[in-house]
Amino acid sequence: MIRAALADGTADRPCVFEVFARRLPAGRRYGVVGGTGRLLERLRDFRFGEEELAVVADSLDERTLGWLRDFRFTGHIDGYPEGELFFPGSPVLSIRGGFAECVLLETLVLSVLNHDSAIASAAARMTAAADGRPIIEMGSRRTHEEAAVAAARAAYLTGFASTSNVEATRRHGVPSAGTSAHAFTLLHTGPDGPDEASAFRSQVATLGVDTTLLVDTYDITRGVATAIEVAGPGLGGVRIDSGDLGMLARQVRVQLDSLGAHRTRIVVSGDLDEYAIAALRAEPVDAYGVGTRLVTGSGAPTAGMVYKLVEVDGIPVAKRSAHKESLPGAKRAVRLHRRSGTAVEEVLLPWAGSLPADPGLEQRDLMVPLMRDGDTAADLPTLAESRALHESAMVTLPWEGLALSEGEPAVPVRVVPPGPRR
Amino acid sequence: MIRAALADGTADRPCVFEVFARRLPAGRRYGVVGGTGRLLERLRDFRFGEEELAVVADSLDERTLGWLRDFRFTGHIDGYPEGELFFPGSPVLSIRGGFAECVLLETLVLSVLNHDSAIASAAARMTAAADGRPIIEMGSRRTHEEAAVAAARAAYLTGFASTSNVEATRRHGVPSAGTSAHAFTLLHTGPDGPDEASAFRSQVATLGVDTTLLVDTYDITRGVATAIEVAGPGLGGVRIDSGDLGMLARQVRVQLDSLGAHRTRIVVSGDLDEYAIAALRAEPVDAYGVGTRLVTGSGAPTAGMVYKLVEVDGIPVAKRSAHKESLPGAKRAVRLHRRSGTAVEEVLLPWAGSLPADPGLEQRDLMVPLMRDGDTAADLPTLAESRALHESAMVTLPWEGLALSEGEPAVPVRVVPPGPRR
Repeated sequence: MIRAALADGTADRPCVFEVFARRLPAGRRYGVVGGTGRLLERLRDFRFGEEELAVVADSLDERTLGWLRDFRFTGHIDGYPEGELFFPGSPVLSIRGGFAECVLLETLVLSVLNHDSAIASAAARMTAAADGRPIIEMGSRRTHEEAAVAAARAAYLTGFASTSNVEATRRHGVPSAGTSAHAFTLLHTGPDGPDEASAFRSQVATLGVDTTLLVDTYDITRGVATAIEVAGPGLGGVRIDSGDLGMLARQVRVQLDSLGAHRTRIVVSGDLDEYAIAALRAEPVDAYGVGTRLVTGSGAPTAGMVYKLVEVDGIPVAKRSAHKESLPGAKRAVRLHRRSGTAVEEVLLPWAGSLPADPGLEQRDLMVPLMRDGDTAADLPTLAESRALHESAMVTLPWEGLALSEGEPAVPVRVVPPGPRR
Repeated sequence: MIRAALADGTADRPCVFEVFARRLPAGRRYGVVGGTGRLLERLRDFRFGEEELAVVADSLDERTLGWLRDFRFTGHIDGYPEGELFFPGSPVLSIRGGFAECVLLETLVLSVLNHDSAIASAAARMTAAADGRPIIEMGSRRTHEEAAVAAARAAYLTGFASTSNVEATRRHGVPSAGTSAHAFTLLHTGPDGPDEASAFRSQVATLGVDTTLLVDTYDITRGVATAIEVAGPGLGGVRIDSGDLGMLARQVRVQLDSLGAHRTRIVVSGDLDEYAIAALRAEPVDAYGVGTRLVTGSGAPTAGMVYKLVEVDGIPVAKRSAHKESLPGAKRAVRLHRRSGTAVEEVLLPWAGSLPADPGLEQRDLMVPLMRDGDTAADLPTLAESRALHESAMVTLPWEGLALSEGEPAVPVRVVPPGPRR
């Protein structure tokens, strides 16, 4: 496409591309924008070296190769801040620049936003279901090794407390946490058979009594008794990773209390998703460990975002054939809130348009500058700031938006079409 | 775990860990081992630098930090060759070494195998459904940017013809292919409105008449007519990306034939999975483009593989509490085939065990050496060789194994337990 556009003179035509999801995953009531910060970092460094160019050298002419060699995005990007909620059609990113430089970004932009937003959207529901109890992200083993790092970041963005992925700590400052595995207990097997006490003693000797012991390798009741024998009633926590977690948590709580270990926390893990987390709300569970269902987006592993050309030389354009239509013209987005803060509607306006004021509602511009002339905006938020923004955005959801049951998007989106061409 | 094991003297105890999936995704009849080649490359380079160590410095003692600084895996790995089929319990990887060096590999091993095997397992079903017609992988935009490269590789392993991900070409030699996007057609909009012919002329001028033109930006019938007007009846192909693909393919075939374009291929794309591909078998479709459903594992984005300690100092060990049991003891796997080649059973034997010969069946060892003393085995297959191995493995599936409908694993797995301890 770029070679042809360079040849026919259209490569530098001013274009606007938009990123949006046509719909939310079935029954979901909101989505969460994830990945923006990570994307801007990658865009800043998005270049082609000689190794990359060598791969396409045979299929491109010298002009196109030279263009790629000198490539640097020089346009503007506006978008929803990371952590903000989105709904069907929300223009979460708006990219302006020449056709060729913009079209080249499509795969990277969508890869980052589709992955991270899918994880963030699932994680936000889990955080809401946990109702204030901390969740440890522990899903690295169930997804691509690099996706794992991004997933830990997206989970933290939306309220998870920590991650077992230490690389996410290194790269993104996500607090790290973890517990031991069954292998550590099994390792302490001698000629006389299993020796759970020896494994617990070793862990406590190394990490102190505030550690969390994994008690379900053999018999849970015996494991809890051994844990308190070894660590005393000041033991930090026990983890249960299998079985009927609600019933086991109740039993273990009674047992811990009977042993005087009133402050020993119960951590549960094992194929938890937002529904299982919510089902455990009434149980004496102090923290959750969530893995597979988090990193796979709890049934929706991609956010379904697309990257569509909406304007060329100021002219609104759109695919017209049946199915997969998109809305022509560059758009900006405004969300209307009651004085109480509750969001009631999102309105997509032509880029330069405005909305008449309504005395009962506050208008909030959803899009902020992210890149100008190819440079990232100076005041991009940190991950911690995006996490705070997400938390405050969740508060604006109408109450039914937090329901886990299937439903309509919690905030309707209205489109004000571009006026007739002047 | 490693710090405690170093302190209590168990860090170097000889251990065997195994990687296996407890079950296949609901209704799937086989899985495909993907990622082994990629994993071995990553294991070879698996080291910790000062930047990584700095992150864990506060929570580790000097001894553990020193151990990590000097870390290099020195053990042995055996496993199913990449491209081989697996079933519930198949020990696709067996890792032998000291406890600490083996347990440290868990996340990397599982991340690579769970991701790549999920994609390979979905892709194999798509390849079978396509029944010889080529499939182009075009899902990069719907998954994490690095997972995308691995997904393209896994798809090629299992029979896809090519990928739109050029980085997969660079890293893994996967043939690259692609078509233009709707944006290229929309770009060619002037003051007088859309100009599809101008977009087609530009593409043909650059890529020649053997190119594939995307004909569904506006009206498909008009698009096909314009495509042949511009390129002549020698046009390589047209792509349809939306709508009722079967009906449209029939209409477009008739139209192309009526225009004398008998050899112009029809490429279809748009939310295709193995079922949609199979449903199009009777239609005049020449090639498929598959994206989202491939990179998300067609409903099963992770292969569910686990990494379990099965032997310590020669003693078989296993978690014993209810749920999530695993089979103790290091195992080797043998598949039994009829003389015709059809696989009839997989048998898991104790590592040193053997199976009595059956005159009607051939025994095939499934596990091959992958690493010895931390070095990759000298004769590891290339991706092309693994692709050929996969193709020949698919031929051994009982015929019902190729059915897309939900069913039992196509090859039953029998376990011969370890004998009593001597």
